[in-house]
Amino acid sequence: MTEHIVAFGSLDDQVRSRAEALLAGRGVLEIVSSATDASPDTLARATAIAGTLRPGQLTAAANTRWVHSWAAGANADLSEEMLASDVTLTSSTGNGGIPLAEHSMLLMLMLSRDVPRWQRAQAEHRWDRFTHGELNGRTVAIVGLGNAGADLAAKAKAFHMHVLGVRRRVERPVPGVDELFAPERLHEVLARADFVVVTAPLTADTKGLFDGAAFRAMPAHAYFICISRGGIADDAALLRALQEGWIAGAGLDAHGTEPLPPESPFWDLPNVVVTPHNGATTGATAARGGEIFLANLERFLDGAPLANIVDKAAGY
Amino acid sequence: MTEHIVAFGSLDDQVRSRAEALLAGRGVLEIVSSATDASPDTLARATAIAGTLRPGQLTAAANTRWVHSWAAGANADLSEEMLASDVTLTSSTGNGGIPLAEHSMLLMLMLSRDVPRWQRAQAEHRWDRFTHGELNGRTVAIVGLGNAGADLAAKAKAFHMHVLGVRRRVERPVPGVDELFAPERLHEVLARADFVVVTAPLTADTKGLFDGAAFRAMPAHAYFICISRGGIADDAALLRALQEGWIAGAGLDAHGTEPLPPESPFWDLPNVVVTPHNGATTGATAARGGEIFLANLERFLDGAPLANIVDKAAGY
Repeated sequence: MTEHIVAFGSLDDQVRSRAEALLAGRGVLEIVSSATDASPDTLARATAIAGTLRPGQLTAAANTRWVHSWAAGANADLSEEMLASDVTLTSSTGNGGIPLAEHSMLLMLMLSRDVPRWQRAQAEHRWDRFTHGELNGRTVAIVGLGNAGADLAAKAKAFHMHVLGVRRRVERPVPGVDELFAPERLHEVLARADFVVVTAPLTADTKGLFDGAAFRAMPAHAYFICISRGGIADDAALLRALQEGWIAGAGLDAHGTEPLPPESPFWDLPNVVVTPHNGATTGATAARGGEIFLANLERFLDGAPLANIVDKAAGY
Repeated sequence: MTEHIVAFGSLDDQVRSRAEALLAGRGVLEIVSSATDASPDTLARATAIAGTLRPGQLTAAANTRWVHSWAAGANADLSEEMLASDVTLTSSTGNGGIPLAEHSMLLMLMLSRDVPRWQRAQAEHRWDRFTHGELNGRTVAIVGLGNAGADLAAKAKAFHMHVLGVRRRVERPVPGVDELFAPERLHEVLARADFVVVTAPLTADTKGLFDGAAFRAMPAHAYFICISRGGIADDAALLRALQEGWIAGAGLDAHGTEPLPPESPFWDLPNVVVTPHNGATTGATAARGGEIFLANLERFLDGAPLANIVDKAAGY
């Protein structure tokens, strides 16, 4: 069988040439600048597609057996069409876990030490010395223990923190997690946390998981951090929690609306650090994403089981 | 013998009452608001002093057998008088090692991810997404492996970094340090570093250790971080290195002149994060300092060997 691999977007030169080498004698690679630019003919030819499809495209891609998402969290790929089809969907999960764990530690440190205050003082040439917090000895609750959450747990232990974990598969222990809880016990965990870090995927189960009651469950001195997906927190509830002091502050890399619009109130809250869904935007993340795709392409060509298969029912 | 303990500065209420309990029947505690306010009579009565003495005071304190510094680095206590006397000097080393390691990680992350750029974008409500670095896989050279350096090494390993260490006592391995070098090999170590973190005390050996040649030895993409003492870096050389691109940037908590004067050029360098010698200013540091003093006070009263004795010849 000759495979026809269609990739949306610009492929790194090295990834492209390695993909072509894998395909030699077994198929071809067709690169289309974006999903919008994929013609019906291209979609009909595709036996596999790398990229996120637009509505109707999966139906048009009648010969496609495999769709690979460049995203670590495949929520945008899980259309009704995809859920109804038997096409195998794989994600790039694992490409950004480590830099997202780095970003989580950065946001915890920035909130604990009030970095914005130092940055203002530096801009004004002021020697503004103040007492701040330590992460040492504090409790972090990590919600979601995939690649980012597991790496974060190990980092938090090196910071001498007590680590609470929340995951669906509570039977699988995670190194660095001191106590592991099922999602049903979330509010009990939140009540014990000095820092809450959301690394979970956006799924039917996690959408709106952080509602008013969740933020009310957190101690008033605690910080909320989200580095995975907007929508897991209800932005209206989060805004109220921050404005009314239910919690001490937040570090937000993932937002309910992206890009965060200029008129969003989150930009100006004094107790919020905003970053533009940028925690994993590194050259190494792109390189790891390329490796994940190439390894799966090789498996696909060999008829071997693919890695990073998305559980459509679970949503990740 | 009745001991007369003189403490300069305001003692935490709990430390004071615990010191008085230890002293019950064995001596008295006299608190003086500052060294400047210590009368000749007070100094003459003192059998031990907690605080940093002013010139002439050690000579006036003819009955003093022990001086305890509230500082972790006792460079300011090592006067000519102190060096010439046989008074035992102890430091508060260990009080701030962990928060200084936290601060070092914060500064590495801020430089690696260009946090000032995100902070400016937040202030202007701009969604400014860019590619940045990871600490993962990079090499950090830690100069000085006391409490802060050793804790930093363990943290850097959790960030998947390669850790080079430089210390005088090269025969003592440190967990987390992948390769340990004697100070004579400093420039060789610097040439391999993506990040250099100075945690060493200020001594005759380290004063001016980071001169033009040291900064020239670092790769142009590398960052310099100092969280221990100003003066280890020659500020003129550091300024040139930053202005002329010998190195990529710096994170400076310790400065050659403190407070850093408003006219200092370091405030405005775009590739420098300035914090006001503030990395260890936490409630927990104060609490640990109190414990170190109380434990030594108990040993002093019992005639037991003191901990944290400063090696006057080594300077720390």
